[in-house]
Amino acid sequence: MRFSEYFLPTLRDVPKEAEIVSHRYMLRAGLVQQTSAGIYAWLPMGYKVLRKIEQIVREEQDKSGAQEVLMPTIQSADLWKKSGRYDDYGQEMLRIQDRHEREMLFGPTNEEMITEIFATHVKSYRDLPKNLYHIQWKFRDEIRPRFGVMRGREFLMKDAYSFDLTKEDAKYAYQKMFLAYLRTYKRMGLKAIPMAADTGPIGGDLSHEFIILADTGESEVFAHKDWLEKDITGQGIQYSDREGLNAYYEELTSIYAATDDKHDPSAIDASNLVTARGIEVGHIFYFGTKYSEPMNARVQDSNGDMVTVHMGSYGVGVSRLIGAIIEASHDSEGIIWPEEVAPFKIGLINLKVDDAGCREACEKIYADCQEQGIEVLYDDRDERAGTKFKDMDLIGLPWQMTIGPKGLEKGVAEVKNRKTGEKSEVSIEAAMTKLAA
Amino acid sequence: MRFSEYFLPTLRDVPKEAEIVSHRYMLRAGLVQQTSAGIYAWLPMGYKVLRKIEQIVREEQDKSGAQEVLMPTIQSADLWKKSGRYDDYGQEMLRIQDRHEREMLFGPTNEEMITEIFATHVKSYRDLPKNLYHIQWKFRDEIRPRFGVMRGREFLMKDAYSFDLTKEDAKYAYQKMFLAYLRTYKRMGLKAIPMAADTGPIGGDLSHEFIILADTGESEVFAHKDWLEKDITGQGIQYSDREGLNAYYEELTSIYAATDDKHDPSAIDASNLVTARGIEVGHIFYFGTKYSEPMNARVQDSNGDMVTVHMGSYGVGVSRLIGAIIEASHDSEGIIWPEEVAPFKIGLINLKVDDAGCREACEKIYADCQEQGIEVLYDDRDERAGTKFKDMDLIGLPWQMTIGPKGLEKGVAEVKNRKTGEKSEVSIEAAMTKLAA
Repeated sequence: MRFSEYFLPTLRDVPKEAEIVSHRYMLRAGLVQQTSAGIYAWLPMGYKVLRKIEQIVREEQDKSGAQEVLMPTIQSADLWKKSGRYDDYGQEMLRIQDRHEREMLFGPTNEEMITEIFATHVKSYRDLPKNLYHIQWKFRDEIRPRFGVMRGREFLMKDAYSFDLTKEDAKYAYQKMFLAYLRTYKRMGLKAIPMAADTGPIGGDLSHEFIILADTGESEVFAHKDWLEKDITGQGIQYSDREGLNAYYEELTSIYAATDDKHDPSAIDASNLVTARGIEVGHIFYFGTKYSEPMNARVQDSNGDMVTVHMGSYGVGVSRLIGAIIEASHDSEGIIWPEEVAPFKIGLINLKVDDAGCREACEKIYADCQEQGIEVLYDDRDERAGTKFKDMDLIGLPWQMTIGPKGLEKGVAEVKNRKTGEKSEVSIEAAMTKLAA
Repeated sequence: MRFSEYFLPTLRDVPKEAEIVSHRYMLRAGLVQQTSAGIYAWLPMGYKVLRKIEQIVREEQDKSGAQEVLMPTIQSADLWKKSGRYDDYGQEMLRIQDRHEREMLFGPTNEEMITEIFATHVKSYRDLPKNLYHIQWKFRDEIRPRFGVMRGREFLMKDAYSFDLTKEDAKYAYQKMFLAYLRTYKRMGLKAIPMAADTGPIGGDLSHEFIILADTGESEVFAHKDWLEKDITGQGIQYSDREGLNAYYEELTSIYAATDDKHDPSAIDASNLVTARGIEVGHIFYFGTKYSEPMNARVQDSNGDMVTVHMGSYGVGVSRLIGAIIEASHDSEGIIWPEEVAPFKIGLINLKVDDAGCREACEKIYADCQEQGIEVLYDDRDERAGTKFKDMDLIGLPWQMTIGPKGLEKGVAEVKNRKTGEKSEVSIEAAMTKLAA
């Protein structure tokens, strides 16, 4: 993409409504624009990142055996009356009347609807287990939306729902998601620590929050220092390996980790304790028959008896993750994207666009990148070098490659690693080889 | 995917609420499920098709130079008061009050919002042209939703918006979309005929509908017989070739084609006229400054004067297209998916799952397909052969490959082309080579 043609409105000034760093950088880097309180439009570069995050979430769900569906945003209130949550949900639920004065709502979550869909079609234990997920926009009418996409009103969530014949099977489904989540975050360059959590309005008796550590996190968390070093993505474990998965789960959940409200200082030796700020990026629940009972989701077991299915639900805050990634990975100049979610791998800076040699060299690099499938943003604007460097640091692409008349005389480009700040002068060929790797 | 594990609830009976064939087959093939009047959940196989269609639309928009954004579903009423459409829109607009009693709405289209986003950031002619699109769920509160996803209330639309300095540039933007649309439909196995249309509530003075022909189409259309034979995808024309594009556009739009309300029998010789039923699958508009004027979207031109930008908007009914494709491509047994949008390329039928040889052969084919990236649905269910054949015809995958004990003795599989019905007995190896092509 050429910067001169891209709809990428970077801002010099710090927007005054933005209280936290991810919000400031998302506005300044032209990723999003607020259209109403707590509601955002995603501009091209922001949407590109969001889609990459969404795709990682999708791939890891698929690998775990979950199947993707898409439920609509607008739901009938009747569903929620059946489960008993219609009144409980309070003012956070966006309630709507349609033209026929039917009570509708913008879904804040989908336990009721997926249970009804399941119950319509699945009648036999032979069709179990099932885990159905969707990645859809939700609405929660927060009284005071803030922190940009971290606590917006309209937000993108991946929510999965598992259906099993027994509690034991449901626990296996839960453990699969537990592993899938840790692998998902890892691929985004994040380390999320699972912490036993309260189940809140979803209900049930088993729940974990996934928390990433960031100095600017919203809450205080407590964890054993082992979490920091350990690889926690269960390398080599197959989802089909029920025993191996269980052993992995038992091992991880025996290591201390707790949110503020669950912390018990007597449960861990102070010398092993790490106290930090955390951001919640996922939440999983096992809640048994809480929804299947009222929604009448029952299947015939192998004896011909009708059994109410056991369920769990599993959420990842997809749009929130962008904010969380920036909170965890930035410096004073801007965002530092982990490579897997970066909107482009390389920022190509032409220092002198009115110089024929610079133009020619850049055009060749640009064409080569496209041919090799390397995503590149080419700053071909007629702007001062300082502006280009500042913009490129702000938007945080992993690599910068700068072409100027002096370097060209020597046949070299300057290559900078955004994260380490390391710069080197190398031949254009060597730079291409390095960046194609 | 294994059928036994897939959430693919096929139905024997014809759902009585379904009036048209695409709706019947979408329900029977387990693609969608209605959750409220005119609102559907997409089940795994239906969503797989929807995402393929969406991806084709996206790729063709990108090729034309449009840039993808995502605007939220919930909009502020204030925007629509600015443009004057808030009162015009009537009961089809789903109006909402949030907890602070602010007037909101579920967007039926996005002219206002995108114009405001544009106007916030773009101030100079140097940043033009721009074409921004998004693929997002819309809501229109139809008084009588019907025909399944063909006229649902919550539906997925691709809508693009172009911004140009002059009317001439806007026409160029319009012609790019005109070509992109014909290429989009072609890739889905459809031939859409562009027909001059009324602009309706969007406004403006230039508009085309894109209509595909299907016996079950919603309206009568009239076209020169040349349309039927002609390749209309402007082969070889680059979007950057303004003159070539214009000549192509002028040529195509000189060939007679008209919807019912625009038809003029005196304008075409009866011997050249084809009368048919049609389904609208896209609609494009040039409307000049209708929105940019009230929303104050102005840029500085090269003389330093402020100029109101010229706009167009361009819609493709993404979810509607699934219905339209089925209307255009089915038989008495079920759907016939064009290969580019088929949920799987091959349906692999194991005739005797309790036969070790059949199981082994099928598992090998299944593994080979996955290794080669060929999408396959493996019917490994313990069901009668008749049920499997019926289901496979109903869901309409392009190829069926059947493995039974008798064939295996001879070392052959039966390969059937769903569209032509042609069957052949070939060695499994030959079948794989043929289907991998």
